[in-house]
Amino acid sequence: MRVLSEYKGKAGELLREHGLSVGDRVRIVRDDGVVVEGIIMPRSELGDDEHIVVKMDNGYNVGVRVDRIEKLEAPGEGHEPSFKPMEGEIEYDPKLPNVSVMSTGGTIACRVDYETGAVKPAFTAEELVGAVPELLDVINIVDARAVLDLLSENMEPKHWMKIAEEVVDALSDPDVEGVVIGHGTDTMAFTAAALSFVIEGLNGPVVLVGAQRSSDRPSSDAASNLIAACAFAGDGEVGEVTVCMHGWTSDEVCLVHRGVRVRKMHTSRRDAFRSVESIPIAKVDVKDLRNPKIEFLRSDYRRPEDGEPEISGGFEEKVALVKFAPGMDPEVLDFYVDRGYRGIVLEGTGLGHVSEQWLESIERAVDDGIAVVMTSQCLYGRVNMNVYRTGRLLRAVGVIPGEDMLPEVAYVKLMYVLDRTDDIKEVERLMRTNIAGEIEGGRVLGGFEPADGPHHRL
Amino acid sequence: MRVLSEYKGKAGELLREHGLSVGDRVRIVRDDGVVVEGIIMPRSELGDDEHIVVKMDNGYNVGVRVDRIEKLEAPGEGHEPSFKPMEGEIEYDPKLPNVSVMSTGGTIACRVDYETGAVKPAFTAEELVGAVPELLDVINIVDARAVLDLLSENMEPKHWMKIAEEVVDALSDPDVEGVVIGHGTDTMAFTAAALSFVIEGLNGPVVLVGAQRSSDRPSSDAASNLIAACAFAGDGEVGEVTVCMHGWTSDEVCLVHRGVRVRKMHTSRRDAFRSVESIPIAKVDVKDLRNPKIEFLRSDYRRPEDGEPEISGGFEEKVALVKFAPGMDPEVLDFYVDRGYRGIVLEGTGLGHVSEQWLESIERAVDDGIAVVMTSQCLYGRVNMNVYRTGRLLRAVGVIPGEDMLPEVAYVKLMYVLDRTDDIKEVERLMRTNIAGEIEGGRVLGGFEPADGPHHRL
Repeated sequence: MRVLSEYKGKAGELLREHGLSVGDRVRIVRDDGVVVEGIIMPRSELGDDEHIVVKMDNGYNVGVRVDRIEKLEAPGEGHEPSFKPMEGEIEYDPKLPNVSVMSTGGTIACRVDYETGAVKPAFTAEELVGAVPELLDVINIVDARAVLDLLSENMEPKHWMKIAEEVVDALSDPDVEGVVIGHGTDTMAFTAAALSFVIEGLNGPVVLVGAQRSSDRPSSDAASNLIAACAFAGDGEVGEVTVCMHGWTSDEVCLVHRGVRVRKMHTSRRDAFRSVESIPIAKVDVKDLRNPKIEFLRSDYRRPEDGEPEISGGFEEKVALVKFAPGMDPEVLDFYVDRGYRGIVLEGTGLGHVSEQWLESIERAVDDGIAVVMTSQCLYGRVNMNVYRTGRLLRAVGVIPGEDMLPEVAYVKLMYVLDRTDDIKEVERLMRTNIAGEIEGGRVLGGFEPADGPHHRL
Repeated sequence: MRVLSEYKGKAGELLREHGLSVGDRVRIVRDDGVVVEGIIMPRSELGDDEHIVVKMDNGYNVGVRVDRIEKLEAPGEGHEPSFKPMEGEIEYDPKLPNVSVMSTGGTIACRVDYETGAVKPAFTAEELVGAVPELLDVINIVDARAVLDLLSENMEPKHWMKIAEEVVDALSDPDVEGVVIGHGTDTMAFTAAALSFVIEGLNGPVVLVGAQRSSDRPSSDAASNLIAACAFAGDGEVGEVTVCMHGWTSDEVCLVHRGVRVRKMHTSRRDAFRSVESIPIAKVDVKDLRNPKIEFLRSDYRRPEDGEPEISGGFEEKVALVKFAPGMDPEVLDFYVDRGYRGIVLEGTGLGHVSEQWLESIERAVDDGIAVVMTSQCLYGRVNMNVYRTGRLLRAVGVIPGEDMLPEVAYVKLMYVLDRTDDIKEVERLMRTNIAGEIEGGRVLGGFEPADGPHHRL
């Protein structure tokens, strides 16, 4: 693996001449008049020393060939850092709810780390309020914790446990209404599912929040998402783990999704998060950041419990998620059996099918005591293994129907269930029983937008 | 594996007493007055001999305990079979376009096979017209081929090749405007992608069509989908492989999707098929089945080419699709390397990421000459591996960005590309080059419905 580093060669010389280095702001005029302004990024792993890579304010990186640079300078006008810590003490407002805010390394209210291009959660209440001063009108940040510092694609079950412990600890303070957790968006839904299962007896809302655009970009959703999440956590009405993100591409509304029914459905849009075959718990109008308004969209959410929450169990790591595709060899299942895996979540087609060629390997896995759970790569709808022959054959060899659970949620849940029991009957019972809202069972339909919606231009 | 069979024990006795057996229509009155009417299904693989399983007209199976049966009879009124072959010769109408119709085993215009509960494509032009008489007003079926008889979850690359050869053969007749292929919905999108890549120089439309509800159910979409598909094939305007299915849950409109941009997004709804990050090519109004109306929704489709189409290459089967999830061990990649795989499509998170813990195994795979392609489990949007550190590191070890290709389409395409070349540079070039519309590159946006659509009840 190559490492990130300062520039060498021609690029390094040029930068040193101007007293600039990685992390500094620069303004470059190219020989064709094009102007590139932004932060000097580390020498790219891909690059040579003939280019200088600049992260522009719109968030994109651009490489400029050194021999085409006509002018290179530190920009005359100072660049405002994305936020400055608020100075002095923050006043406690007894009329506002108390919220604990945690950071795990997401983009939310964070600075770009110029070493890696990643975001850095240098995280105190003062810094948060410095970044989003409107928070002062919404909640008291009674507790700001930098729990982890990870890009969310690097999250693992041990990190889910760490976060769960911090949440339980924060909520053991009777003055705290709810918890907000800043989290990278890539695996936020997985973490939300994990916390939903592993924390028992929640006495207040837990709200995961992220940003699709970092806070140094003009179109950042960081501030409005954070305000909405804090308002919802402070409201204290719900005893569930939720995800709060932009509802649609305007800045005006955020949605609060049930943590076990949500999925990142777009790589880049700010409204990427969707409740799947479900509807969100609430929307938060953030037109006025100082006065967010919560409107509940359903009433069947879990209320906060009395007493303190606790950790119930953990996660068995010998679980695999296997997506089926035509032509794929079932030998991958044999591999997992041979490696001593205890659970496999299949992402089958349609109502929950795989090729009949897979039956023998599946039967072998089941005979070895492995829990095999079926979900659907359609994502919307529910598994029904009684309609077609293939489904019935799969049931016959012992495959557990994943009901209407999202594949990702079934994967996290199976890890959780297998940590609790090795009795396969009990595993099946728990997988098919609703624990945290993950099985809606058709009680609430929604989220599958007809193609004749006004936005489809049909 | 247990086998399907007639009933034994109490259930068998009761049926024999009444002269009924598997496949017969039955009307059962239970001791609580509940009436179950439908087809007697084979003794369930799960069941005992205490229940009789009946497939009701709504398509669902229900088991009735023998000792709760008050009355059991062959229904007084004869059940109309779902269709009767049209008798006599079908008249050729020179004003109508000529279409070749193929069956591969899907639900479309087929009967329930009472042996297995599956659908049987007993397939002649007369039977098709018997099932959907309105076809007589829309096209001449000049050629009806029963190509395969498979549940679509059992399709493999060799079947894609078989279908491709039949399509090429049918279109070598200059009098044929287009081809319609009945296909099970589970893997229809995979087959559509495969045909899109492997048939070169299409001189007319190829339209895959299926049904989400079998034709013996009152809510079946079989007839309207088939009419729409035949109308579009007969129109002859497009030289692409497409998928034609219900547009929304009413019976009035079908959508024609580009074969490389479509996905089954719901397990059971009739409007399950969606163009993803793309818009459909056309809609077909089928309010009047005898007079379907085509309206194009975009103009950038490929026109039919002159001359005859041909097969270009085939599919390398040593390709795997691997979906990433937090906590998953990269050892599955090592497994594929050890097994001599030539390609791996990763379904990563967000803009195209996996845990940094996977980097070493990925680097090993790339060093072994394996093509590793990144796609996103978000499905909507596009991979961008230049924004975050993880993406850049993945690029640095040689991962090929899958652009805006759906993971399933990238998987089929990689099979196709690896059959053509083993030069890894050429593999990367082809994977990142649009061949059949699979890379739209943001030219057409659509299909990601804002959550504030009127159907979300927000």
